[in-house]
Amino acid sequence: DFIHALQNDIKPAFGSSKEALDTFLSNGIINWGDPVSHVLEDGDLIVSQTRSSDRTPLVTMLLEGPPACGKTALAAKIAKTSDFPFVKLCTPENMIGYHEAAKCQAIKKIFDDAYKSPLSCVVIDDIERLLDYVPIGPRFSNLVLQALLVLLKKAPPAGRKLLVIGTTSRKDVLRDMEMLNVFSTIVHVSNISSSEHLLAVLENADLFSREELQYIQKKTHGKKLFIGIKKLLVLIEMARQMEIGERASKFLCILEDEGALEYS
Amino acid sequence: DFIHALQNDIKPAFGSSKEALDTFLSNGIINWGDPVSHVLEDGDLIVSQTRSSDRTPLVTMLLEGPPACGKTALAAKIAKTSDFPFVKLCTPENMIGYHEAAKCQAIKKIFDDAYKSPLSCVVIDDIERLLDYVPIGPRFSNLVLQALLVLLKKAPPAGRKLLVIGTTSRKDVLRDMEMLNVFSTIVHVSNISSSEHLLAVLENADLFSREELQYIQKKTHGKKLFIGIKKLLVLIEMARQMEIGERASKFLCILEDEGALEYS
Amino acid sequence: DFIHALQNDIKPAFGSSKEALDTFLSNGIINWGDPVSHVLEDGDLIVSQTRSSDRTPLVTMLLEGPPACGKTALAAKIAKTSDFPFVKLCTPENMIGYHEAAKCQAIKKIFDDAYKSPLSCVVIDDIERLLDYVPIGPRFSNLVLQALLVLLKKAPPAGRKLLVIGTTSRKDVLRDMEMLNVFSTIVHVSNISSSEHLLAVLENADLFSREELQYIQKKTHGKKLFIGIKKLLVLIEMARQMEIGERASKFLCILEDEGALEYS
Amino acid sequence: DFIHALQNDIKPAFGSSKEALDTFLSNGIINWGDPVSHVLEDGDLIVSQTRSSDRTPLVTMLLEGPPACGKTALAAKIAKTSDFPFVKLCTPENMIGYHEAAKCQAIKKIFDDAYKSPLSCVVIDDIERLLDYVPIGPRFSNLVLQALLVLLKKAPPAGRKLLVIGTTSRKDVLRDMEMLNVFSTIVHVSNISSSEHLLAVLENADLFSREELQYIQKKTHGKKLFIGIKKLLVLIEMARQMEIGERASKFLCILEDEGALEYS
Amino acid sequence: DFIHALQNDIKPAFGSSKEALDTFLSNGIINWGDPVSHVLEDGDLIVSQTRSSDRTPLVTMLLEGPPACGKTALAAKIAKTSDFPFVKLCTPENMIGYHEAAKCQAIKKIFDDAYKSPLSCVVIDDIERLLDYVPIGPRFSNLVLQALLVLLKKAPPAGRKLLVIGTTSRKDVLRDMEMLNVFSTIVHVSNISSSEHLLAVLENADLFSREELQYIQKKTHGKKLFIGIKKLLVLIEMARQMEIGERASKFLCILEDEGALEYS
Amino acid sequence: DFIHALQNDIKPAFGSSKEALDTFLSNGIINWGDPVSHVLEDGDLIVSQTRSSDRTPLVTMLLEGPPACGKTALAAKIAKTSDFPFVKLCTPENMIGYHEAAKCQAIKKIFDDAYKSPLSCVVIDDIERLLDYVPIGPRFSNLVLQALLVLLKKAPPAGRKLLVIGTTSRKDVLRDMEMLNVFSTIVHVSNISSSEHLLAVLENADLFSREELQYIQKKTHGKKLFIGIKKLLVLIEMARQMEIGERASKFLCILEDEGALEYS
Ligand SMILES: Nc1ncnc2c1ncn2[C@@H]1O[C@H](COP(=O)(O)OP(=O)(O)OP(=O)(O)O)[C@@H](O)[C@H]1O
Ligand SMILES: Nc1ncnc2c1ncn2[C@@H]1O[C@H](COP(=O)(O)OP(=O)(O)OP(=O)(O)O)[C@@H](O)[C@H]1O
Ligand SMILES: Nc1ncnc2c1ncn2[C@@H]1O[C@H](COP(=O)(O)OP(=O)(O)OP(=O)(O)O)[C@@H](O)[C@H]1O
Ligand SMILES: Nc1ncnc2c1ncn2[C@@H]1O[C@H](COP(=O)(O)OP(=O)(O)OP(=O)(O)O)[C@@H](O)[C@H]1O
Ligand SMILES: Nc1ncnc2c1ncn2[C@@H]1O[C@H](COP(=O)(O)OP(=O)(O)OP(=O)(O)O)[C@@H](O)[C@H]1O
Ligand SMILES: Nc1ncnc2c1ncn2[C@@H]1O[C@H](COP(=O)(O)OP(=O)(O)OP(=O)(O)O)[C@@H](O)[C@H]1O
Ligand SMILES: [Mg+2]
Ligand SMILES: [Mg+2]
Ligand SMILES: [Mg+2]
Ligand SMILES: [Mg+2]
Ligand SMILES: [Mg+2]
Ligand SMILES: [Mg+2]
Repeated sequence: DFIHALQNDIKPAFGSSKEALDTFLSNGIINWGDPVSHVLEDGDLIVSQTRSSDRTPLVTMLLEGPPACGKTALAAKIAKTSDFPFVKLCTPENMIGYHEAAKCQAIKKIFDDAYKSPLSCVVIDDIERLLDYVPIGPRFSNLVLQALLVLLKKAPPAGRKLLVIGTTSRKDVLRDMEMLNVFSTIVHVSNISSSEHLLAVLENADLFSREELQYIQKKTHGKKLFIGIKKLLVLIEMARQMEIGERASKFLCILEDEGALEYS
Repeated sequence: DFIHALQNDIKPAFGSSKEALDTFLSNGIINWGDPVSHVLEDGDLIVSQTRSSDRTPLVTMLLEGPPACGKTALAAKIAKTSDFPFVKLCTPENMIGYHEAAKCQAIKKIFDDAYKSPLSCVVIDDIERLLDYVPIGPRFSNLVLQALLVLLKKAPPAGRKLLVIGTTSRKDVLRDMEMLNVFSTIVHVSNISSSEHLLAVLENADLFSREELQYIQKKTHGKKLFIGIKKLLVLIEMARQMEIGERASKFLCILEDEGALEYS
Repeated sequence: DFIHALQNDIKPAFGSSKEALDTFLSNGIINWGDPVSHVLEDGDLIVSQTRSSDRTPLVTMLLEGPPACGKTALAAKIAKTSDFPFVKLCTPENMIGYHEAAKCQAIKKIFDDAYKSPLSCVVIDDIERLLDYVPIGPRFSNLVLQALLVLLKKAPPAGRKLLVIGTTSRKDVLRDMEMLNVFSTIVHVSNISSSEHLLAVLENADLFSREELQYIQKKTHGKKLFIGIKKLLVLIEMARQMEIGERASKFLCILEDEGALEYS
Repeated sequence: DFIHALQNDIKPAFGSSKEALDTFLSNGIINWGDPVSHVLEDGDLIVSQTRSSDRTPLVTMLLEGPPACGKTALAAKIAKTSDFPFVKLCTPENMIGYHEAAKCQAIKKIFDDAYKSPLSCVVIDDIERLLDYVPIGPRFSNLVLQALLVLLKKAPPAGRKLLVIGTTSRKDVLRDMEMLNVFSTIVHVSNISSSEHLLAVLENADLFSREELQYIQKKTHGKKLFIGIKKLLVLIEMARQMEIGERASKFLCILEDEGALEYS
Repeated sequence: DFIHALQNDIKPAFGSSKEALDTFLSNGIINWGDPVSHVLEDGDLIVSQTRSSDRTPLVTMLLEGPPACGKTALAAKIAKTSDFPFVKLCTPENMIGYHEAAKCQAIKKIFDDAYKSPLSCVVIDDIERLLDYVPIGPRFSNLVLQALLVLLKKAPPAGRKLLVIGTTSRKDVLRDMEMLNVFSTIVHVSNISSSEHLLAVLENADLFSREELQYIQKKTHGKKLFIGIKKLLVLIEMARQMEIGERASKFLCILEDEGALEYS
Repeated sequence: DFIHALQNDIKPAFGSSKEALDTFLSNGIINWGDPVSHVLEDGDLIVSQTRSSDRTPLVTMLLEGPPACGKTALAAKIAKTSDFPFVKLCTPENMIGYHEAAKCQAIKKIFDDAYKSPLSCVVIDDIERLLDYVPIGPRFSNLVLQALLVLLKKAPPAGRKLLVIGTTSRKDVLRDMEMLNVFSTIVHVSNISSSEHLLAVLENADLFSREELQYIQKKTHGKKLFIGIKKLLVLIEMARQMEIGERASKFLCILEDEGALEYS
């Protein structure tokens, strides 16, 4: 019966999911520029569309972008701010070592739980990892792929609404798997690629002095820059261990060594 | 015994199947032009042939066309209007995560149930998905394929008649699998590809004003257009969330971005 | 003990097999020309050879020809008219969804039963389907293939005689599998390929008037024609649903659309 | 204990094996020419070597030649005339539908039984069939292959002697599998390839009259001829069903159609 | 409960792990030159970063270099000197013959144990061996690969910190598997490639006399030299068995034969 | 407890292993020339190194050479003369039909037993056969390969010493599998390739008279010769069955037919 299900399945699931979302938001969302705003706006739009339209009870959005660009955090952010009564994260972190049948069951369970709530949001994180994808071969779990292909097209029961947010670094692979077709919207998440964006993050990081920031700005201005926010935050943390005097220049060296910044 | 079977298997199956068919018809069938009428007429013909001919107790029809063109809805429509005593949908949505042997059993069960009724219709939806087909490899379930190849050729028991309607977006793949051979008739389902067809749908959608419709007509007239009805209905729903002033032009932009409309 | 086996295994098997053969002969054998007679004569010869020669206790014949050309019906006809005490059909229709080990057991059981009768005939229908063959890959059940390769060479026990009739649409594939070697005789089953043959079937079908037949004869005379009897019977049944006035010309159109008749 | 094993395993095994060998010799060995004598002599040599030499307790011989050339019958003949206390046939006919592990066990059991007798002979018939070999792929059972590779090199226990006779139509495949290496001797079994050899068989067959034989001799003299004794015996049996007048010429026609005799 | 876990899981695990680390350090770390110091410094840095930074609770480092260059010993050294309360070695030596699911469970168990301690270090030794990688094919365990890919990205629970040190000889393979991405830092471990480095090791080895060392220095000076410390220690041990007079020159010969030293 | 293990595991294992070694030495080691001496000396060296060095508790040697060149016998000889308290043969002959997991367990068991003795020698015979290697594909057991790769690098417990001697005919395959790396020493075993070596074996064989030997010497002098000692001993045994008069020349003919001796 439904009441029982509500009490046993949905509430605790919801509780633990909120926490889970927060894990992926531990470093917050730094609004380092337009690309970030745009993704969040698209998220808002799709959330309100799910809530209001009666003819599209299933809405699906894919966040795609390079490794470490912040996809998971943004998906978690959108899901959290939707404030839907049921929000759940479907992540490979909870399925380590699962054989593909167990993975399918776990994924299906999340959707079945979502179908029980009038308004639900499911985040399917790191789809290539859920699929056990590896480029050598290539190999992947076709059982999981087929399950996702069907779940992403299957309407929720009458009167229920469902928003699905997927994330991936391998849009090309998903295209080959004919999975792009089944998403209503595909949104690109960008790497940081300009000096202004970099500075916006560095200011937020509360590490470098004004002079250091000016030095970095001068040195990176007009240079090719390409780095994901997740990676950048790690490098900043490395710089934090260094001696103050050489910190700014060493930080730029690391950026160059990592291939994130054009050599001067 | 037959009476028992009728009461236990067929009636409830029928009941739930009617509902199931309606799920796939929730947005109705908009008759946006000749291609739609033709498919429905072909369906009528094949339905009456199944009913009347004694020498072809098994009739099989394949609806094929691009993704989102409306195949499933049309198959459901034909099956529903056949008004046969037994109508059943065989869809991957009910077999998520099934291993191939379970899939085979589920499919065989549907046919075995159909054989018990004097006049039956089985819809095999999304055949490539039933087959767990993925172009990478390619991979698919040969067990399910072989079951379908045999079931699509196997005559029902003496005195019973069976109509099978399949749907697919991958006619080419089914040809490679030597499955096209086994269908009596193959019917193409079209995408919307002219301004008139588009306008027919938009008028039905009850969203745009007369002026907006005229604007859209003017802007799309003579342009290359190619979009499935399912996708089009989603985009219309998106437009419904937008502000009235810019709705029409934004809608055309989305059509262009989706690659459905030639850029102006 | 043998008596028991005779009463429990062979008699019922025989009974149900006779029925089974009739299923495949429901539309009879229309003798539309020499190719049909030749196959039936070859069948008679091989049947009497099995009955009379003591040095070849195992005789094996393969009927091969294009899809829908009538192979199964002809094999059933020969088996039925042999009037051997044991006649059995080994068909994929009875093994839907079987995994390969189960298939092997089912096939082996049929042969083991046949070995118990002094004079037996086994029809192995649609060998490529029994093998779960699909050209993509290609894939097939090697377990079933190896079982057939051995069974088709293995002599029955002393004093028993066995005739095996196989059918296939993929002679080329069976050659690649080194299966052609193991058949004593290979007989080709032809498609209908001349106006005279077509007319012979149409006259038998009891549908068209004398004038219509003359019209069809005139229109098809000298044209390239290539269609299997099974497919032709379906198209005739379609024509039967049409209005009398346009029936003959529409029938020719369908033949052309199906690629069976050269466009005029 | 050994006495028990002797009474339970070896004696019955031996009994049934003698019968089994006779099955493969039902049509006898017709000495149609030198190639037959040579194989039988090589067999005698190898049998006596097994019996007499103390330094080679394991002797292995491979009979290889085209399909139907008489390999199995010759191997059975050599094994039977060896008159060793333990003679056993290892044939795919007894392993239909076995999965590869079961096949390995069955093969290993035969060798283990052989090791119990002071002087044993094991015939491994149709090695490519034991290996479930099919050229498409190619596929084969590596488990069985590895078992054979080891068994064909493994010396029997101290004081025991073992002769292994293998047969194959695919010497090339066995070379690729590095199995040729492990046989002590490889003997070629020939097809019938001259008019004299053919006549020798026909005379033995007790079918054609003196005049017919002379006619056949005249017609085949100097022509290219290539046919296995097994196939030839089947064709003779077919000719036996024909009317006396045309028998000889029809027999030559069949030879030509089968590709065994150059067209005149 | 945590206390219980501490007493049952962590302490003994720690105990046995310390020992395990020592096994891999039985020949100590000879500081034969700058490359060794640099790796150890990088290790110190990463250890202190794990300890101090709050924003990067997961730090991952990969030691990569040619076979036998000393990766495992250096990883063990860094882990041991970290003096973290939980240190554990994840090595293929403890998983011989494990099927991939068992391997996954064993690896996951190590991480789950690590998550229970506030500050942990896990060494994942010989990643290509953990993955059952072999270049023929190539083949590897995708289940283990996917588990590692997820574990190397998964943050420890709130308040816990984890340092993971991996070792590999196949950086190229790990790149193809998209595993390089997931490491925070990648550090190269070098082979010995100069006469000075060689002499540093030889002096440490306490085998050759001063004269012998001078002789070796003269002979290797300016020559191409490339050998891993592990291999070098084995060759020194071989030389130790030789007669004193010819020891030095023979040692150089072995170096040349092994391809470690350019022929003079 | 150790005493128990010593009494139950090691002693009987040792006992049966000694016998096993003798099986492979039944025809003794004929010292037909320098190549044989060199291998035996290398064996002695490596045995004493294992015994005396404290820094290399694990020593591994690979004997590689063409099929039938005597690898197994030489490995058995070295192991036997080592006179280590634990000597064990790991041979595919004891693992016929084992699936790969069982093979791994059996191999691991041998090493685990070896680790219990202070000084052990394990012979891993015919590595490609242990790996179920076949060039078609190629196919092999990766589970066994990975187990060997780890076992050949894993140090015995503190205070124990282990010598591993492997044999293979496929050095090239082992290189592709990255297995050559893990052996401390690789020693080549040669075929007989000169008339002197041949004569040394023939004299030892006690078959030919002085005159025959001179005849053979004259006929083979300066000719290309290439044959393994195992094969040569079989051919000598064949010659032993022949009549004395023609024995020598026939023996040379067989050598030529086998491709072992250049045709004159
Ligand atoms: N504007 C931002 N967008 C996204 N993440 C941000 C932003 N600002 C800060 N972050 C932080 O950056 C990190 C982004 O990591 P995240 O795991 O989302 O990246 P990802 O693209 O999913 O990486 P991967 O490709 O490895 O899955 C998070 O810790 C997040 O809190
Ligand atoms: N003329 C029409 N033909 C088909 N569907 C229509 C038509 N008019 C409106 N619809 C609606 O359009 C949608 C068509 O979706 P449907 O699932 O049938 O497409 P599909 O081709 O099966 O898609 P897919 O390729 O993803 O399986 C349904 O919601 C249906 O109610
Ligand atoms: N001369 C004929 N030969 C064969 N079948 C005939 C003939 N005349 C009428 N028929 C009818 O034609 C149909 C032939 O169908 P059948 O299943 O034997 O074809 P098939 O070649 O086995 O097809 P498939 O390739 O699909 O297996 C049967 O219904 C049979 O009764
Ligand atoms: N000289 C002969 N050599 C071999 N077989 C002979 C000879 N003379 C008569 N025969 C008969 O010919 C048949 C040979 O068939 P057999 O099964 O041995 O051929 P095969 O080469 O093993 O065929 P396959 O390649 O199909 O295994 C047997 O019935 C045997 O009795
Ligand atoms: N500077 C050094 N760096 C590393 N190892 C050293 C050093 N000096 C001495 N050693 C010794 O050298 C050996 C290095 O072996 P180790 O197993 O670490 O090599 P590896 O690179 O992991 O080899 P593999 O590629 O086979 O895994 C150890 O015995 C270690 O004690
Ligand atoms: N000098 C020798 N070296 C090796 N074996 C010898 C020698 N002299 C005589 N023999 C005998 O030759 C035979 C060598 O066979 P062995 O099985 O060792 O060869 P192998 O190279 O291992 O063959 P395979 O490649 O088939 O494994 C044994 O019977 C052994 O007793
Ligand atoms: Mg992510
Ligand atoms: Mg559909
Ligand atoms: Mg058929
Ligand atoms: Mg045979
Ligand atoms: Mg290492
Ligand atoms: Mg050997």
